[in-house]
Amino acid sequence: MNKTIRIVVAGPRGRMGKEAVQLVKETSHFELAAVIDRKNGGKLLSDVEGFTGLDVPVYTDPQECFQHANADVLIDLTTPERGYLHTKTALEHNVRPVVGTTGFSSEQLDELKGMAEQRGIGCIIAPNFAIGAILMMKFSEIAAKYFDDVEIIELHHDQKLDAPSGTAIKTAEMIAKNREAKKQGHEDEKETIAGARGADFEGMRIHSVRLPGLIAHQQVLFGAGGQTLTIRHDSYNRASFMSGVKVSVETVMALDTLVYGLESILD
Amino acid sequence: MNKTIRIVVAGPRGRMGKEAVQLVKETSHFELAAVIDRKNGGKLLSDVEGFTGLDVPVYTDPQECFQHANADVLIDLTTPERGYLHTKTALEHNVRPVVGTTGFSSEQLDELKGMAEQRGIGCIIAPNFAIGAILMMKFSEIAAKYFDDVEIIELHHDQKLDAPSGTAIKTAEMIAKNREAKKQGHEDEKETIAGARGADFEGMRIHSVRLPGLIAHQQVLFGAGGQTLTIRHDSYNRASFMSGVKVSVETVMALDTLVYGLESILD
Amino acid sequence: MNKTIRIVVAGPRGRMGKEAVQLVKETSHFELAAVIDRKNGGKLLSDVEGFTGLDVPVYTDPQECFQHANADVLIDLTTPERGYLHTKTALEHNVRPVVGTTGFSSEQLDELKGMAEQRGIGCIIAPNFAIGAILMMKFSEIAAKYFDDVEIIELHHDQKLDAPSGTAIKTAEMIAKNREAKKQGHEDEKETIAGARGADFEGMRIHSVRLPGLIAHQQVLFGAGGQTLTIRHDSYNRASFMSGVKVSVETVMALDTLVYGLESILD
Amino acid sequence: MNKTIRIVVAGPRGRMGKEAVQLVKETSHFELAAVIDRKNGGKLLSDVEGFTGLDVPVYTDPQECFQHANADVLIDLTTPERGYLHTKTALEHNVRPVVGTTGFSSEQLDELKGMAEQRGIGCIIAPNFAIGAILMMKFSEIAAKYFDDVEIIELHHDQKLDAPSGTAIKTAEMIAKNREAKKQGHEDEKETIAGARGADFEGMRIHSVRLPGLIAHQQVLFGAGGQTLTIRHDSYNRASFMSGVKVSVETVMALDTLVYGLESILD
Repeated sequence: MNKTIRIVVAGPRGRMGKEAVQLVKETSHFELAAVIDRKNGGKLLSDVEGFTGLDVPVYTDPQECFQHANADVLIDLTTPERGYLHTKTALEHNVRPVVGTTGFSSEQLDELKGMAEQRGIGCIIAPNFAIGAILMMKFSEIAAKYFDDVEIIELHHDQKLDAPSGTAIKTAEMIAKNREAKKQGHEDEKETIAGARGADFEGMRIHSVRLPGLIAHQQVLFGAGGQTLTIRHDSYNRASFMSGVKVSVETVMALDTLVYGLESILD
Repeated sequence: MNKTIRIVVAGPRGRMGKEAVQLVKETSHFELAAVIDRKNGGKLLSDVEGFTGLDVPVYTDPQECFQHANADVLIDLTTPERGYLHTKTALEHNVRPVVGTTGFSSEQLDELKGMAEQRGIGCIIAPNFAIGAILMMKFSEIAAKYFDDVEIIELHHDQKLDAPSGTAIKTAEMIAKNREAKKQGHEDEKETIAGARGADFEGMRIHSVRLPGLIAHQQVLFGAGGQTLTIRHDSYNRASFMSGVKVSVETVMALDTLVYGLESILD
Repeated sequence: MNKTIRIVVAGPRGRMGKEAVQLVKETSHFELAAVIDRKNGGKLLSDVEGFTGLDVPVYTDPQECFQHANADVLIDLTTPERGYLHTKTALEHNVRPVVGTTGFSSEQLDELKGMAEQRGIGCIIAPNFAIGAILMMKFSEIAAKYFDDVEIIELHHDQKLDAPSGTAIKTAEMIAKNREAKKQGHEDEKETIAGARGADFEGMRIHSVRLPGLIAHQQVLFGAGGQTLTIRHDSYNRASFMSGVKVSVETVMALDTLVYGLESILD
Repeated sequence: MNKTIRIVVAGPRGRMGKEAVQLVKETSHFELAAVIDRKNGGKLLSDVEGFTGLDVPVYTDPQECFQHANADVLIDLTTPERGYLHTKTALEHNVRPVVGTTGFSSEQLDELKGMAEQRGIGCIIAPNFAIGAILMMKFSEIAAKYFDDVEIIELHHDQKLDAPSGTAIKTAEMIAKNREAKKQGHEDEKETIAGARGADFEGMRIHSVRLPGLIAHQQVLFGAGGQTLTIRHDSYNRASFMSGVKVSVETVMALDTLVYGLESILD
């Protein structure tokens, strides 16, 4: 049904890159065209440990890669420095980039956007590809129009240093857009032990649970007379990013500009 | 901030009607103009047991009510027969109806729509005003675009006769719109006790839990590699309908046609 | 199967008393012998509004009641003052009391215990009859032997004044008995918004959620490498106390002393 | 505080064995004495890939191992055949075995029990070391004394073939011990789609959810008037077995017989 999309993966031996190669392999209308790797240039990927059966060329030089690979899309989940170089080079060769990073400056984003629009091709840059997390945030933003009261509980493994999590704060910010600041709870409520009522973000409360065994979870709990609405995302491992990468690859083919953030391409 | 909306409540002594009177009383920009009641015509509502302090007129005849009440909106949570009469009479007097019912025929709906459009005024007819339940269904419909696999667990008190619940089936239908039929689970899976895998609705599974203590709950569980997304609604009592009635009263003031279903007015 | 137990209910018109009468009516081996009520002495209960069909005598004087009622058990869910009088009078007539209160002094408890033991009959005094809440606390106490890390999330309606709830603190105390004090979370963790990590109770964390719509809920979350164990109690209404009253009535028949706290009679 | 326990791990390169080596390394009062491995006999473990810094001897022959290792406990998470040999040999050398298997015959168990008792030393054989799962089952068995109604929801990845899971059936069996068979739900309830009400196990219902992303989860839901009690276990990875292995190693030092099943050593 879908036209085959030819894909270059950058950083195939990295933890995320490995998942991306796996995604391309498992998706019937995706085809691996080549990979960009700091090592192994000139080999076939099938000659590199862990990639049996994938006989596509490995390039160290991105220029060379895009000249020969006849690719439609680049998937880059490397570092900001290398990712920026790969993205720019891809655009120069009319290859559409799908890039996971929070590390590009706004000048870099502007430059890349200009390049994409000049060529009339798509480019997607996203800090987070966990589509379930993005939907949780979007749905919370919508629900905030109809529920005045909300609390966020985020739960992570006990090696996490910061509380609340970045996702919890981002969720609270998105909710705050559709909600007048409101001090929740009873106006005379008292904490008999400090901190019980959690972190105060414009009157809504965020609670951070840290336990061994947990991975990365968040639930957003809206309440109104006689009812509650709960939106929860559980992330168990890195594979959770790949559904977002897949949607992005499919969407970038139809875009003619640069889009920032996965939330911008979900209707 | 908001202009005051003058409201007629039909059936103020019924269980839902009582909640509606309460809602009007508690909302600062709502004002009770009158009530329509089969009994007590000619009295003040404050003379009826349970309504101390509400000195608005009680009418038995809807014609008479709308002639004198100078109302903006009718809230009707009575029966289909009386509701139809009230709705029609309200429209004739340019009062905007907000009606909770599943009982109107499509002919009746067409007629009422014609009347609303001719006068250029709003009318909202909805089978379910629990805004959290409506959002749960809407969010599920959206999430189905990005997740191929979903199961629904609905949980109710053990006096409920039908399984799955109507809401669960409606949710499944809305999900099915954004999803190709897909038999979920492993293709070789085996039930060692029949029914373990639940009800099959176009390949997605619905599970119905019945226990004393429970009220009305539903969770929709989407899964993809490495992650799950859960949307859950808990309904504890009739008050859960009132947030939807409130939004409808506010929205109906800006409409110029009849809208069916609360989902149609949520963005 | 079970021998019929004849029961006196004190305070039948109160909110809890009504539930108790209902419980006796619905339980096949329970039989209502009489009621003690400040009003209506000399009437039949069936003559009092709301008790159609229950033609048992109403007594205002507890002495008189226990002389004539030929009862096995007293259920008292009234006030500490009246409850103390009823309990003492019941014991004097060899009727076994089941009393819900936190209001007896330790002198009163000692005196009542002496009376029960002298007669060799049972008496149960309990601050909380919600058997699910008691089990949640007991199970948490046990689990604490095997899990070093635990956090408590309690969720209540937003009219509640104190945080954490009394039940959460009692649960934490019971856990602390089986656990060396341990500061949980990463030793370098930072709250970027104060309170995010909740209330600190001997190093374990308690989070208090307050939202309209919620009733009374608590979940205790234990974590260890690769797993979590969750114990959750949801209380929806006063009926939740009645299963504990039922077990107490059955148990008090086999006791020959006074027992304090429902947890003491659950194995 | 605790006396150091010297431990032999069998099968250190296997997936479970690796976790066991890790457990010993991380527990302050545990010390790795030696390992039994089909390969690498005569080497130091630190010479085997993936075990840097662990300079304990590797033995291929269990006899030789137990003669020289001066061990207190054997941890064996290998196959039934090798495990049986290791267990027997350990007992002959007064080393206390902790063995994870369902594969021993009752004759083998009897023989090993005889050996343990003759020497007056402990031995623990368990099919499941996930302590959270064991507690979930034990707590469910207890709660069944006080709640007549219960449903089990077990949730697994969609590669699982059988439904309901073995753990769900074992849980139902343990509940059934404390509960008269009772057909749950309304006596006139109707499935409008077959299977909605789940698998019927002596009148209680089991629901099996299968979704990509899920790992291994189960929740047991008890209901009574006005309340529910939920006990849930989430297993995220193999590390979940290690807390049970740890408790077993500590407990086996105080036993003088063979104990089967982790549930038998938890109070």
